Amino acid sequence: MNTTTMAPQTFRAIDVIRKKRDGVELSRGEIEGLVNAYTSNEIPDYQVSAWLMAVVLKGMTRPETAALTDAMLRSGEVLDLSSLRASKVDKHSTGGVGDKTSLVLAPLAAAAGVAVPMISGRGLGHTGGTLDKLESIPGFNVNLPVAEFRRVLEACGCAMIGQTAEIAPADRKLYALRDVTGTVESPYLICASIMSKKLAEGIDALVLDVKTGSGAFMKSEKDAAFLAELMVETGERMGKQVVALITDMDQPLGNMIGNSLEVVEVVDVLHGGGPQDLRDLCIELAGWMLHLGGVSKTVAEGKQQSAKLISSGEALERFRQMVELQGGDVRVIDDAKRLPQSQHTMEVVSAKAGYVGSIQCEQVGTACVILGGGRERKEDSVDPAVGIVLHKKVGDQVNGGEPLATIYYNAAPRAERARQLIEASFEIASSVPSAKRPLIHRVIGKSGEKN
Amino acid sequence: MNTTTMAPQTFRAIDVIRKKRDGVELSRGEIEGLVNAYTSNEIPDYQVSAWLMAVVLKGMTRPETAALTDAMLRSGEVLDLSSLRASKVDKHSTGGVGDKTSLVLAPLAAAAGVAVPMISGRGLGHTGGTLDKLESIPGFNVNLPVAEFRRVLEACGCAMIGQTAEIAPADRKLYALRDVTGTVESPYLICASIMSKKLAEGIDALVLDVKTGSGAFMKSEKDAAFLAELMVETGERMGKQVVALITDMDQPLGNMIGNSLEVVEVVDVLHGGGPQDLRDLCIELAGWMLHLGGVSKTVAEGKQQSAKLISSGEALERFRQMVELQGGDVRVIDDAKRLPQSQHTMEVVSAKAGYVGSIQCEQVGTACVILGGGRERKEDSVDPAVGIVLHKKVGDQVNGGEPLATIYYNAAPRAERARQLIEASFEIASSVPSAKRPLIHRVIGKSGEKN
Repeated sequence: MNTTTMAPQTFRAIDVIRKKRDGVELSRGEIEGLVNAYTSNEIPDYQVSAWLMAVVLKGMTRPETAALTDAMLRSGEVLDLSSLRASKVDKHSTGGVGDKTSLVLAPLAAAAGVAVPMISGRGLGHTGGTLDKLESIPGFNVNLPVAEFRRVLEACGCAMIGQTAEIAPADRKLYALRDVTGTVESPYLICASIMSKKLAEGIDALVLDVKTGSGAFMKSEKDAAFLAELMVETGERMGKQVVALITDMDQPLGNMIGNSLEVVEVVDVLHGGGPQDLRDLCIELAGWMLHLGGVSKTVAEGKQQSAKLISSGEALERFRQMVELQGGDVRVIDDAKRLPQSQHTMEVVSAKAGYVGSIQCEQVGTACVILGGGRERKEDSVDPAVGIVLHKKVGDQVNGGEPLATIYYNAAPRAERARQLIEASFEIASSVPSAKRPLIHRVIGKSGEKN
Repeated sequence: MNTTTMAPQTFRAIDVIRKKRDGVELSRGEIEGLVNAYTSNEIPDYQVSAWLMAVVLKGMTRPETAALTDAMLRSGEVLDLSSLRASKVDKHSTGGVGDKTSLVLAPLAAAAGVAVPMISGRGLGHTGGTLDKLESIPGFNVNLPVAEFRRVLEACGCAMIGQTAEIAPADRKLYALRDVTGTVESPYLICASIMSKKLAEGIDALVLDVKTGSGAFMKSEKDAAFLAELMVETGERMGKQVVALITDMDQPLGNMIGNSLEVVEVVDVLHGGGPQDLRDLCIELAGWMLHLGGVSKTVAEGKQQSAKLISSGEALERFRQMVELQGGDVRVIDDAKRLPQSQHTMEVVSAKAGYVGSIQCEQVGTACVILGGGRERKEDSVDPAVGIVLHKKVGDQVNGGEPLATIYYNAAPRAERARQLIEASFEIASSVPSAKRPLIHRVIGKSGEKN
């Protein structure tokens, strides 16, 4: 342990560690002291990791969670978007397989008059990431400086970039430490991580899409609802309008999984087509964004308005503008062949006839990672061309030998491993599954309002 | 977080951290892997501190505790004392105020034919340390190389040194990390730390003196008994005879506190004098050492034998031999004035008449630290001359203005602070305290045998 390189501790981390270990509630000042001392390298990783583990095992109160979020948020720059007349509303998803809603929602809400300053992440583990999907569009730049981000936002009402060094640096440092110390899995720490970054965007309102099911980080609805409530309350304590939808991730969302394939499906939805579940979820989330942004009186009205902006082509037009402003090749919108294409395809066929009883969603996500379309480690690069197109979803009838999915691949051994995984993820039942899981499980926040 | 300086991890620390966090029992191989990887600098402090916090909050099973002890023990050299014909028996105390029994017990048990290879520690916090007491004897060398340690042991049957770099290096590294990460307070980690060092001495049996009361680390008897049982079971799992005595530390042991003062009291006891409580505890612990060492059939017989070895002067003679062999000035034994002397003394008098109801023992220990006789931090040096002599103990009658204690000091401002603390630590009751706490609360281990 190299203590000699540390600056003298003005802040006594050991006292805060012991308190948390013993289940004593920390004050706002103590939490702020810890976050600030860590961000400025005044206390070592080994003290913070012990504290993080104590948080994982002892939990946090709501005031502690809000104080942590606030300290992390204020560790860096908070965007001041007050010069924009429009309401600033963002959406955040906890991550899933085939979840490309952000690419639909940003231009759709912008077309309705809501400003969407979206700062997103990359894929990790079995889940995809918005930045990776955007980067499959040739030329698309997700690393805009803040001034440029603001310019795009002012020009077309939405802009989508990655986390910058200026935004919530404490989260960046804490997340890297959590990742290697078994302290990722805490709703309090997850909440502070998400909310500190989102609230640093200078937004007025936030719609959270908390996933639950076999493809989500929160497998059980109970855990998803707990995290959702925590985030809603934390956001409200910080004076923001926040609503959380608990949505289904027990099978992939839409039919396409993989970066350029998902862009194709986004364009389909913006054209008024695309798979039902993806379309419905986009409309639902857009309805909430429009409502929280004050451009529709109710969520139902926001949904109607969103559907109209799709059928009129206005949402697609916003998407085109954003792609162009961020340096992307807009020709991909009309000619999907200009997106990166895999060299080969392979069918995954059903061994028997019946009905799709379930799809083990995390396995499908992992299959895409195996193909090269996702990351096992943060430093891995992704292949934008590879992916999976599902031909059958839960409840669909299937004949023996009929394709369940098509694999888009560049390396045969990877494709074979992915095929086995996808095949095993489909459970073929002899009869139609009795109860279908709803797309929207619950809405948390803005109490009294029903969607 | 500097991960670039770390060697590639062959051992996946993250998996072991997660398992412990989730309450899954770790295998011997996993614990061994963690200890070995840490000792050889293959995994960083920040992973180990997260794991330590998970251990503090989730606990360990008995097999896990034994595996940790074993891995720490085998991280360094294990002394091979099989060439010595005598049984090798040691005693370890969890630490207290005025606890100088080790200095009496090593020569006493040696005089009875038991070999005592004692590796001790320094004082920390409010408790004193055996090494500091020994070093108050001019010339006494506690840093003998292993070969010299063995030579002294062979020559006089006992030898007393400090921990060497070769003995349990994993404990040294882990303890330094625990000290700064709020992970000291775990019976499992305390057990593994103590037992790994003690069993590395190559002993056959061990007598543990687990202190309880206001001057002990384990304030409650319940906590003390839990730690005692854990250490006894861990030692037995490793094939050693281990017994633990839960003894009282609700007031200082004996009358003298401070390094050279305690040597004076040790010589008093070896001369057949000294305060009753200290004498009784030494005889009790020696009885167990002789019994476990096979030189007496019963503990009672061992106690009788010990008392005889004191009255015959044989125990004192062994002490004289050991001091000489370890380079100490033996003249201090007959002339206490040759020990370091403080420049000044000051009386602490009782404000009122009555009976001593209680003495807040930790405060008295802290008063000695304030005088300079102990350490607040590991790197502090100690003043061997300063200390406290108690004139009254619990149950004693006292008149108004009568001295409760004498302070031996070199710096007046420190003495005044110590005086206030000592004065406040004495509770003077109007009547004799009803129930006196026993000296020996319980004996754990060697079941069926009563002392």
